[in-house]
Amino acid sequence: MREENTAGAWTDADIRFMQQALSLADKAKGLTFPNPAVGAVVVKNGAVVGKGATSPCGGPHAERNALKQAGGKARGAVLYVTLEPCCHVGRTGPCTGAIIDAGIRKVVASVRDKNPLVNGKGMALLAEAGIEVCTGLLEQEAQRLNEDFFFWITHRRPWVSVKLAMTLDGKIADTSGDSRWITSVHSRAFVHDLRRKHAAIGVGRTTLENDNPRLTVRHGKTGNPVRIVFSSKAYAPPNSYFVRTAGKKSRSILVVRGGRNRSRHMLDNGVEVWRTAAADWKGSLRGFLRTAYEENIPSVLIEGGARLASAFVEHGLANRVYLMYANKILGGGAEGLAFERPLALSRCIYLDNMEISTFSGDVVITGIPVRR
Amino acid sequence: MREENTAGAWTDADIRFMQQALSLADKAKGLTFPNPAVGAVVVKNGAVVGKGATSPCGGPHAERNALKQAGGKARGAVLYVTLEPCCHVGRTGPCTGAIIDAGIRKVVASVRDKNPLVNGKGMALLAEAGIEVCTGLLEQEAQRLNEDFFFWITHRRPWVSVKLAMTLDGKIADTSGDSRWITSVHSRAFVHDLRRKHAAIGVGRTTLENDNPRLTVRHGKTGNPVRIVFSSKAYAPPNSYFVRTAGKKSRSILVVRGGRNRSRHMLDNGVEVWRTAAADWKGSLRGFLRTAYEENIPSVLIEGGARLASAFVEHGLANRVYLMYANKILGGGAEGLAFERPLALSRCIYLDNMEISTFSGDVVITGIPVRR
Repeated sequence: MREENTAGAWTDADIRFMQQALSLADKAKGLTFPNPAVGAVVVKNGAVVGKGATSPCGGPHAERNALKQAGGKARGAVLYVTLEPCCHVGRTGPCTGAIIDAGIRKVVASVRDKNPLVNGKGMALLAEAGIEVCTGLLEQEAQRLNEDFFFWITHRRPWVSVKLAMTLDGKIADTSGDSRWITSVHSRAFVHDLRRKHAAIGVGRTTLENDNPRLTVRHGKTGNPVRIVFSSKAYAPPNSYFVRTAGKKSRSILVVRGGRNRSRHMLDNGVEVWRTAAADWKGSLRGFLRTAYEENIPSVLIEGGARLASAFVEHGLANRVYLMYANKILGGGAEGLAFERPLALSRCIYLDNMEISTFSGDVVITGIPVRR
Repeated sequence: MREENTAGAWTDADIRFMQQALSLADKAKGLTFPNPAVGAVVVKNGAVVGKGATSPCGGPHAERNALKQAGGKARGAVLYVTLEPCCHVGRTGPCTGAIIDAGIRKVVASVRDKNPLVNGKGMALLAEAGIEVCTGLLEQEAQRLNEDFFFWITHRRPWVSVKLAMTLDGKIADTSGDSRWITSVHSRAFVHDLRRKHAAIGVGRTTLENDNPRLTVRHGKTGNPVRIVFSSKAYAPPNSYFVRTAGKKSRSILVVRGGRNRSRHMLDNGVEVWRTAAADWKGSLRGFLRTAYEENIPSVLIEGGARLASAFVEHGLANRVYLMYANKILGGGAEGLAFERPLALSRCIYLDNMEISTFSGDVVITGIPVRR
């Protein structure tokens, strides 16, 4: 069994087919919760004869969809898949069985499945059946695509992304409180793509009151993520879009910092209320994450306000931050990142694997926040 | 006379030779004050037979240096030059005459000289002499390279660049005041390159007291820029590097906000004192710029502190800003850009021609600040 291939050994065709599989996975991202988004391509004599992505939860996995499309042509073909095929019986039968039955000659998987139920066993099973197997092709890309899933499955806690749109001088609003349309139209499309890829979206109560955001995915055809509002006052305006469409557009959850025990109940208007037990930021955010894990929510995008976003970052509970800088300078205003206890330069947070991209004038910097 | 060439008409060779000329000019930048930095390449039968850049002030221009190197091979050759050749008698004779005498067949100039003494007349003279002339090749690059010179010659005011190194959340120091080494070693090399390209470097008195900066060019072989300290208290610590090396390493100027009239005098320790007449930020910075123009200083790089840098930006006296973001988050601390009157989002400043680059983890955003 060839466990790891050296980078140089991959052919251009290998890379192209895996990129195609990654692209299929990316399109499925957000539809497959709580399963990872996977893409698969079946290649026979250098031509794609089948492709597929993970179906919405409960439906067939990417490999099965690709094999189905390939039909009889799968015999003797190569399967490119962005994640190690599963070998356990979940909602569907194990993919390894389907691959063996289809007569696949070789399986190229991008990244191992960190799910302890799989974790190398899938590839080993295939190898035992006489199939040539290798892993590691475009591994970083595949890892990044399902970083939320891998974190969730190994840490038993939802993956948290924090997004903050601010000016070049780090402000999220001017001195009058105006914060609308800090970033450009193109960045807003980027934000909707981010939302689509998360299982839930969270905002603070003040943001809900000021902006009355829909927290829906405008530019996609996918279902809407769960909407979460954080309020220590246990209040959400009854005429807000969040309350008015509770349970209709998507689940609406009000997270209340405090309470004797962690608990949850449903209000008449369809809003779920989660009490976090602890009232301080760190304790309450941890309480929230525990409930979210129990409720099978694998990832949350925190969109603001500044206090909520800052609290997740300050207390080490943000797994990735997206800092979106608009081409604007205010010279004063409301801070985007304001910690209860600002850090010393020598002990500050930095972004691991920092990536920079631009959207018609806006700059997006993303990375994994790490405390020095 | 072919005044403007369409972009498509330039050959790859044209572009390569002009890039070579631009590179020569870039290396000379900072040595040629108050002349623009120009590069020139003489090409005969597709091969470079001569190249040159502007000599330090008073010495020959780029064209003469390139022609001298080409010698007799210049006859029938093509001259690529990053700026329209001069036709007036300055410290040296007009370059147009030298080009005609050398027997150059064709002149490709990147950008017209905005100096009212030239401004198209150079190219016209060459055309009259039967030389094929064209302009516009890599014009933007050539314009950018001497933007300070063009501004200075047309606005009769020094070009001001403002550089601010800050964290991703816009802070220049943590709450304890620590601001050293915000950015990485690689960015510090970038800063020294910036310094080399400016005629003067300015800091506020507090920065002088806190950091005792040398304000010299560490990584180059060029002369040091003029050093300027802004102090409303007319004070610079006697044991500071700035005072101790006044008049030795380079001119040391103390700009004092206020005084009845604009005036200048020399202290015993070799520090020049400029009084700006006005004491308010806007008036005093304007007074400073008038004196700097009279003193033949074509460009100034303002390096901080935050108040000084912010004042230049707030009052529309910064021609370019360099915002250097270190991969650090503090969640609080001293603001990098703090205006006396913060702007409204609808009337804020944005950066025209914004450019983004990275230096091993640091992000540099530069552009021309424009008020909406």
